[in-house]
Amino acid sequence: MSHSNEDKNLSFVLEKAGVVYFEDRPIPELGPQDVLVNVKFTGICGSDVHYWSHGAIGDFVVREPMVLGHESAGIVAAVGEQVDRLQIGDRVALEPGIPCRSCTRCKDGQYNLCFHMAFAATPPIDGTLAKYFALPQDFCYKLGKDTTLQEGALVEPLSIAVHIVKQASIRPGQSLVIFGAGPIGLLCCAVAKAFGATRIVAVDINKTRLTFASQYAATHTFESRKVSAEEMAKDIISECELGHGADAAIDASGAEPCIQTAIHVLRTGGTYVQGGLGRPNINFPIGSLCNKELTIKGSFRYGSGDYELAIKLLKSKRVSVKELITSCYPFKEAERAFEGVKAVQGIKTLIQGPE
Amino acid sequence: MSHSNEDKNLSFVLEKAGVVYFEDRPIPELGPQDVLVNVKFTGICGSDVHYWSHGAIGDFVVREPMVLGHESAGIVAAVGEQVDRLQIGDRVALEPGIPCRSCTRCKDGQYNLCFHMAFAATPPIDGTLAKYFALPQDFCYKLGKDTTLQEGALVEPLSIAVHIVKQASIRPGQSLVIFGAGPIGLLCCAVAKAFGATRIVAVDINKTRLTFASQYAATHTFESRKVSAEEMAKDIISECELGHGADAAIDASGAEPCIQTAIHVLRTGGTYVQGGLGRPNINFPIGSLCNKELTIKGSFRYGSGDYELAIKLLKSKRVSVKELITSCYPFKEAERAFEGVKAVQGIKTLIQGPE
Amino acid sequence: MSHSNEDKNLSFVLEKAGVVYFEDRPIPELGPQDVLVNVKFTGICGSDVHYWSHGAIGDFVVREPMVLGHESAGIVAAVGEQVDRLQIGDRVALEPGIPCRSCTRCKDGQYNLCFHMAFAATPPIDGTLAKYFALPQDFCYKLGKDTTLQEGALVEPLSIAVHIVKQASIRPGQSLVIFGAGPIGLLCCAVAKAFGATRIVAVDINKTRLTFASQYAATHTFESRKVSAEEMAKDIISECELGHGADAAIDASGAEPCIQTAIHVLRTGGTYVQGGLGRPNINFPIGSLCNKELTIKGSFRYGSGDYELAIKLLKSKRVSVKELITSCYPFKEAERAFEGVKAVQGIKTLIQGPE
Amino acid sequence: MSHSNEDKNLSFVLEKAGVVYFEDRPIPELGPQDVLVNVKFTGICGSDVHYWSHGAIGDFVVREPMVLGHESAGIVAAVGEQVDRLQIGDRVALEPGIPCRSCTRCKDGQYNLCFHMAFAATPPIDGTLAKYFALPQDFCYKLGKDTTLQEGALVEPLSIAVHIVKQASIRPGQSLVIFGAGPIGLLCCAVAKAFGATRIVAVDINKTRLTFASQYAATHTFESRKVSAEEMAKDIISECELGHGADAAIDASGAEPCIQTAIHVLRTGGTYVQGGLGRPNINFPIGSLCNKELTIKGSFRYGSGDYELAIKLLKSKRVSVKELITSCYPFKEAERAFEGVKAVQGIKTLIQGPE
Repeated sequence: MSHSNEDKNLSFVLEKAGVVYFEDRPIPELGPQDVLVNVKFTGICGSDVHYWSHGAIGDFVVREPMVLGHESAGIVAAVGEQVDRLQIGDRVALEPGIPCRSCTRCKDGQYNLCFHMAFAATPPIDGTLAKYFALPQDFCYKLGKDTTLQEGALVEPLSIAVHIVKQASIRPGQSLVIFGAGPIGLLCCAVAKAFGATRIVAVDINKTRLTFASQYAATHTFESRKVSAEEMAKDIISECELGHGADAAIDASGAEPCIQTAIHVLRTGGTYVQGGLGRPNINFPIGSLCNKELTIKGSFRYGSGDYELAIKLLKSKRVSVKELITSCYPFKEAERAFEGVKAVQGIKTLIQGPE
Repeated sequence: MSHSNEDKNLSFVLEKAGVVYFEDRPIPELGPQDVLVNVKFTGICGSDVHYWSHGAIGDFVVREPMVLGHESAGIVAAVGEQVDRLQIGDRVALEPGIPCRSCTRCKDGQYNLCFHMAFAATPPIDGTLAKYFALPQDFCYKLGKDTTLQEGALVEPLSIAVHIVKQASIRPGQSLVIFGAGPIGLLCCAVAKAFGATRIVAVDINKTRLTFASQYAATHTFESRKVSAEEMAKDIISECELGHGADAAIDASGAEPCIQTAIHVLRTGGTYVQGGLGRPNINFPIGSLCNKELTIKGSFRYGSGDYELAIKLLKSKRVSVKELITSCYPFKEAERAFEGVKAVQGIKTLIQGPE
Repeated sequence: MSHSNEDKNLSFVLEKAGVVYFEDRPIPELGPQDVLVNVKFTGICGSDVHYWSHGAIGDFVVREPMVLGHESAGIVAAVGEQVDRLQIGDRVALEPGIPCRSCTRCKDGQYNLCFHMAFAATPPIDGTLAKYFALPQDFCYKLGKDTTLQEGALVEPLSIAVHIVKQASIRPGQSLVIFGAGPIGLLCCAVAKAFGATRIVAVDINKTRLTFASQYAATHTFESRKVSAEEMAKDIISECELGHGADAAIDASGAEPCIQTAIHVLRTGGTYVQGGLGRPNINFPIGSLCNKELTIKGSFRYGSGDYELAIKLLKSKRVSVKELITSCYPFKEAERAFEGVKAVQGIKTLIQGPE
Repeated sequence: MSHSNEDKNLSFVLEKAGVVYFEDRPIPELGPQDVLVNVKFTGICGSDVHYWSHGAIGDFVVREPMVLGHESAGIVAAVGEQVDRLQIGDRVALEPGIPCRSCTRCKDGQYNLCFHMAFAATPPIDGTLAKYFALPQDFCYKLGKDTTLQEGALVEPLSIAVHIVKQASIRPGQSLVIFGAGPIGLLCCAVAKAFGATRIVAVDINKTRLTFASQYAATHTFESRKVSAEEMAKDIISECELGHGADAAIDASGAEPCIQTAIHVLRTGGTYVQGGLGRPNINFPIGSLCNKELTIKGSFRYGSGDYELAIKLLKSKRVSVKELITSCYPFKEAERAFEGVKAVQGIKTLIQGPE
């Protein structure tokens, strides 16, 4: 591929908290197994907004200018010499974290826990809000022919939800309570349904979101109440007819009262998954963990098979994501898009391009 | 069996907090599958002492006089008409919780989570500190010929440890940190070793217990320090050479700083088990649960196969419990035995008899 | 309940191979946890027909007259004194095998492997083709309000399919090949779909059944060919686009060539389940078991949670069974019904009554 | 590293069935993550002997001259520029199969089932019977300081046994029957013991091997009898007191009667693992698979964590392998060593060097 002037790689760069700019960067070189993707749509995630607002998440600090974005789909523009699974023109979703492939976690089948992960838009690794992004062919997944590139940009959050629901070991016929009806909570509802859960309760403080949830994939909704966690759990159990308690609970809110309620809403032997990040320490009902012999799991990004399954769920129409896309900004208005997400406008915001 | 005067069933009864007495109670009637055991030795557990001191544990309140004790071994004195696995004279350990056998949890193989469990010395069910105790034959386990009845009384806490170590999914070659070197923590060390763990770190504030632990079954010991949980975890990892962190951690202390340290001592993807009950709510590092994608489990009593395995571990000499028995009181001095346990004297206290 | 003349318990009894008669038998006495069900519909199974034709299946020989039938639904007519989950008038499906609840397998959660199982219409236990049948309340399951009693009679074979599909560990997005499109094979297709399998290939020698399968729940069908097992497996893989091979294969035919083909159709690390009984010994490609590191499992009846799930699948409309019911005979024509099943007429034959 | 004359890489090469020669080959170039190992000891495996005798194993045909050997230990002689886990002089065991790291199986944590595996001494990949062998640092494992290089050469077959025993899901307290007391069967006995199996029955036709087995790691031995598989299984169960049957059975013989007996020796719900390769098709008791709801698994080479665990078992003295080494030939007598293995002399034969 010749690098003429047209090939410039326009990118949306974060310099430090609150300071962004556009920059023409070089088009990445391809290794023999790499593909170059012309990025078409990119979703904005809470973590992108957090870097933009604060310049850091925990120990990850933006010290050098970094391209933002990691929820992208696009079209293969060039392929390395050994690439055999993809060809130029293929419409693909990008998995934005590349593991080392040789540490214990990688070889164990848990590459999301890789000790040396290079994850897009996590400092110091550049993200995908650029004209071109290069990655190994096995982290680039062909979309089904009926899946649009806009929907393709949602394969990333859908994979997050797939991983959470797998962590919750959801089996057909089970009951599930999901706290938080934002993009991840909603996608968890849809994935749990595809996994065969027959009772899916969405809990939120926002009525509009609950209405959306019940039209989308929840079988029941419950508006948060200003009562103790125990009391609210009892109310959910009795009003949503959960018998001895829910088989599983997922927190996609990060809010302390939700986490406490989730523990109390479970039956003995139930499973809780922490899907949303909030404060690093909370007041936690550890006694119930023991008395009910619960299993509690974190869920971190996505791992082996999650992207493949997300794409199959879309292909087979078992999950639909297009309803979640509530706005789409041109590349040049990327900062406005970030402002919208920060203001919690709509459900999922995309950025198109650059041209 | 004729119920002559000699057959009276002398029992050690708790009336209410702090008030105990001896009483001759009727010898229990046997159902067709039941056996009557002449109890020979009974260990005292923290929960027995708690009922004695406070008259209640959480929602379980002593409202009627209740026989104490649930860690017993004895000799089969009579058998129901359909009993086919045991005979009079057999030396046995008693599993003191009888599930309903027909709820969902029982049928699923998790009878310790039975909705209708009848557990000895948990109100209102009478305990085993009596001359005779009746229970179904399948909750009565023959001891190996080399196992003494004193050791038999420790099959109950050993089964607790077996269940905890199973919950921790300990596999050969793994590393493990155990917080609390009391009876359960020590037995967890021994069971983990029998399960093939190759690095077993015992943590306690008590040097004497750590010395005992290192002679008993721990490969490393660590004396608690007055530093933050993160810092202490780092110290344990570096001083005990745990690489990226421990594969598993078990809390057998119930202490908040131990639980926090345990979470920080784990590697990504590690497993934590809550084995000891403390306060119902604690300050918990939930962020690490998520970032390290940990699995956290409660452990409640013991379930299918735990007693059998405890007995096999003793029989095959893979675990030894006799070192833990530090005192043995005659039945008539039962209350003194309780006082000793309350004062944290020795490791395991037994009561013998009644004659 | 008074036992007046109307309460007589008309039953369909097998004396020995080929010899059946109707008999008024006493209405069974109820234990405290038992319910008495007025049987309304009973499906006929291959094993019923085999006992009727041969008087035995393997080591199970009909030595005393035995009531036939074990796939039944009915209405609760009386309840034992401790029954708390059901009441008179409830419409229920009957689980016809009652385990001992106290052997190792029962306590482990695998009661279908109980050492002392009492299974209806397996000598010497009487079956359900009678006006009244008594069983413990926890083996009697309330039907959903939209489920008919005819459909209720199919909960038994549906539970067989649920157990097979669970044994195959089917997860969302997986591919599956099912050999044999009789009632069990068809139900396996439907259950696998409900478990999220996205590629379900039905294989049979009978075109009519394949047409039915593709309208019912299979995504692909394949008519058996007179070629080697290896060749046929290759054809299935390439024509049904199974990539490196199927994730799972189920045999519901019992035919040797199907079993061999099933092994060859699997990908490395795939899972095979033997769901149908045929000859006790066959020529088996053990080399592929090793080279592809396959997992092979038997599936025996149904166990913990299978009936509950079958009923939930019907209730939630994720599986439909009414299409499979192709004929229904009055009780007095029970033998004609057996003749029809023996002649492989239709898919599922029911017997109604007795009145 | 300069390639002077001394650096010549003397290798033992198989040209075609029965034709071997020594050849000075070039020392391999190192990639940035590779290490060069000066091979010190190499065990001979049945597959090496099979290639030497027949020039092929199944579809794998020696078409170009190929270096033999794949069970080796040696000393690191050079390291690639990014190597950070090993240094020159380290004593290491070599894992001789390098997977692609990017196919579905590799990412799933089952790299032994990699679609693109490059395995030493499997055509067309050269083996380790050479002065120098290069491989990625993460397939090269440091030996414990008490483990000799001779023992290091047995880490390969020990890893085979580790993988088999893992496939058999051996848990503490279980009973196990192992068919075949050659190197793999014996190592399976030792690994099963380290995994906590308390009853380990070794079965063979050779009394000497059984005597060795009982001194090494078996708790019981059984000499094969000329009776039916069912009868022999009954004899094993009753004479070795296996109750309702063994929890697990492993075949390390490849012999049809052993495989049949293994199936019959299992309890309901038991697990069988095929560890040894024999004929591609055998007469198999499929009826028992179904009636006892068995789980049957192949075991193919070794995968994630197996080498690490093998080395830890040696380090912690839970398994000892030195007893198995019955002869050691100098490199120049490699062909004699192969003749000895073909004649089934001793248990494990090593080749030393070349100097």
